[in-house]
Order: sequence, then structure tokens, then C-alpha cells
Amino acid sequence: VTQNIYDNAGFFAGYAQLRRSVDGLDGAPEWPTLKSMLPDVRSKRVVDLGCGFGWFCRWAREAGAASVLGLDVSANMLTRARETTADPAITYWQADLETVELPAASFDLAYSSLTLHYLVNLAALFGAVHRALAPGGRFVFSAEHPLYTEPGPDYLDEGPRTTDWLAKGVVKQHRTLAGYLNLLIDAGFAVRRVEEWGPTRDEIAAHPEWKIDHRRPSFLLVSATR
Amino acid sequence: VTQNIYDNAGFFAGYAQLRRSVDGLDGAPEWPTLKSMLPDVRSKRVVDLGCGFGWFCRWAREAGAASVLGLDVSANMLTRARETTADPAITYWQADLETVELPAASFDLAYSSLTLHYLVNLAALFGAVHRALAPGGRFVFSAEHPLYTEPGPDYLDEGPRTTDWLAKGVVKQHRTLAGYLNLLIDAGFAVRRVEEWGPTRDEIAAHPEWKIDHRRPSFLLVSATR
Repeated sequence: VTQNIYDNAGFFAGYAQLRRSVDGLDGAPEWPTLKSMLPDVRSKRVVDLGCGFGWFCRWAREAGAASVLGLDVSANMLTRARETTADPAITYWQADLETVELPAASFDLAYSSLTLHYLVNLAALFGAVHRALAPGGRFVFSAEHPLYTEPGPDYLDEGPRTTDWLAKGVVKQHRTLAGYLNLLIDAGFAVRRVEEWGPTRDEIAAHPEWKIDHRRPSFLLVSATR
Repeated sequence: VTQNIYDNAGFFAGYAQLRRSVDGLDGAPEWPTLKSMLPDVRSKRVVDLGCGFGWFCRWAREAGAASVLGLDVSANMLTRARETTADPAITYWQADLETVELPAASFDLAYSSLTLHYLVNLAALFGAVHRALAPGGRFVFSAEHPLYTEPGPDYLDEGPRTTDWLAKGVVKQHRTLAGYLNLLIDAGFAVRRVEEWGPTRDEIAAHPEWKIDHRRPSFLLVSATR
């Protein structure tokens, strides 16, 4: 069972102040790369797995998606998401992504941003997404990069990692990059593109407040086809 | 142009004494995993890219391959490889893997062990391999893992790395894991399996002479389909 840290009041308050929470997609440094891996969403039926405040759901509709279903386990997040739109083509459901069942072959694009590294049973979700996509449908996601979740000598040991980030005892699931890809392939997906996103040297120089001096990746971005 | 370090006398002398050179496939700790990623080779036409002493070529024939072509840039390696077999179904060619042209759709399996991380123009080889494989043909390879070639903070900076291993100034080409996979996908391959191989905790405990205390991967193993 995945920890629902987003309904922890302290965590939620901190999360709501992150740049990506305040400014949305434009506040996420990896968004331009992730966006470049998306298909044209016009007239597409879209599902967002871990939709948070709904920034991507609203973006997809503005970009012409026919409908968007946003799923999240956090009641706090969904309350905020629902407050930000009156668009009848955007629906928000509270759902546990480890056990969610979606209607078969009903979506053209499944999207997920920085959610999958919380899930214990990722194979179950990948199977559900594969069934929920129409033939030729696309699955585009970001996750915390394995080298970010586990930068140390235990890279090959998959399993939970506990960190203090916005709250004490936040549990993330470490998987190797091969682990993510083999789960996708085993679920029936064809991998189309893999990106290991990290800041460029120019970005590091321009943001001394980031206090980083490395070109290790922070996000894993994957595009796959059903 | 790729450095041909294997025809450096000092390097070759050292290489010839490695356990994987003396004992062949059984002396390579990653071989059981790599072997598990191979198709049944019976009656298959096989090409080995960077065949070295020919250990895999001979194994493939013993396992029932119809024919095996071993390619290597090193005259030293090929001389030794030719001395070890009189099998008329094994052929050895000296070839630069960056510029080699192979007959179209003429192989069922392309194999490469710990060679690709030396190549500057890997895209050219992947294209040549794709053309050389029959439809449905398989490409299975190992390479030094990117975290082994570049364990430091510059993981995302692809390019040459110079090390002193068996000889001074050995040049390897660092690519990210995503870099390898995207080159494969761009060449038309479907990725079937990715393994990041490193020693198990038991192996580390059993081999104190390895002097390692980490579970970082040392080899990248990939299986793909044309």
C-alpha cells in the first residue's frame, strides 16, 4: 500500500508553496522536455495519473483534448483541483493508483508526473494503463530518477527509501532504470523514448541557489506506446 | 575513429590474462544473465561484433548455430581466435565496427560483448546491425555500464573518458543509459529487456579480493528485436 503523504497537513502546506505548485507546468524545469515527448493531444481522451492540482489536466484541455480524467489519491489535492476549473470535460476522481480499474480501451493518452516513484505495486498500474489505452495509445510519464532516489552505493537494491522532504518519513520506492523499463515492456508497452533529465551547465550557473554542482539526472522521462 | 587499444602490446598482454580471457564465458560474471537474454541459437546465423578471442563464436556453434561471423578490429585478437578453431562454419573478419557494411538481412542474431563503449559512432553501427538482421532478428549486447564509465558528477555529459586500465590512455565513450536506448530505438529496434548487472551481496561477500562495497552496476545488458 502506498503512503498518502499529500494528505499530511505539513507536507501539503509545503508542497503547495513549491514553484511547480504555484506556477504550474512552467514552474517545472523538466516540462519542456516532457512536453516534447507528448503526442498532439487535440481530440484525444486523456487520463492523468496523480493529477495533483490539475495543472496538466487544464493544459491538455487548452491544447484541445476531448476529455481529461484526473486521478489522485489525495483529497486535499482534488479539492484544490476542482476549485480551479468549471470545465465539464475535466473530471476528477479520487483513486488509489495501485488498485484503480479503468474502462478498457477508453483513453488515447495516459500521463503521469512525478507520481510513480511512490507506488509499491507499479506492475499493477502499468497493467491497468495498458488495458485502459486504445490500440496505439501513448503513455508518457516522469518519475524521480533512480539516481536521485538512491544516489549511494545501493543503486541496485530496489525497495523503499525514507526521506525527510517537506515532512518527516516520506516513503519513496526506489527502482533501477532497467526496473522501470522492464515493467513497462512486461506490461506490453513499446518504449519510444527515454530521457534522463538534469539541469544544463548554463542552468546550474544561472541558479546558484540550487546549490548543485553535478550533472546527475533528477528526473526520468519515458514515452511508450500501447 | 575508435582507438584500437587491443593492438597495443602491453594492453593485449594484460587483457590475455584476465579471467574472462583465460576461462572464456564462464569467467565472465555477467554471462549467465546475458545468456538468459539470448534466443535459442540453433540453426541461427550469428554475427559477433567485437569477437575478441572467439569464445562466444565457438559457444554459439556448440549450441547449434548454423554459422558464425566474428568481427574485430584487432589483428592480435583475430590471430588468436583463428588458432582456436578449425570449424568451417566460423569465419573471422577484421573490421572497423564504425564503418563495417554487412550483407542485408543475413543474420538472425547479432551479439556484442563489452565492445560498444569504445565506439565513437555507435549510431552508424546500430544502423548497420539493423540492416544486417533479418526481420524478427535479435540484437543482444553488453557494454560497460554508464555509471562505471562515469561514476562521478558528470553522468549527463556524454563523450570520451580516458582511463588507465591495462595501459595508459585507454579511451572509452561515455553514454547515458537513455543515450544507448534512444540510439537503438532511433535505429528501428524494439527494446525487449534491459539489465543493469552488478554483483550480488553474496558475491561481494564471497570475493573480498574484489574490494568493492557497493551495489552499483558494472555492466549494461540489452536485448532488442529488429
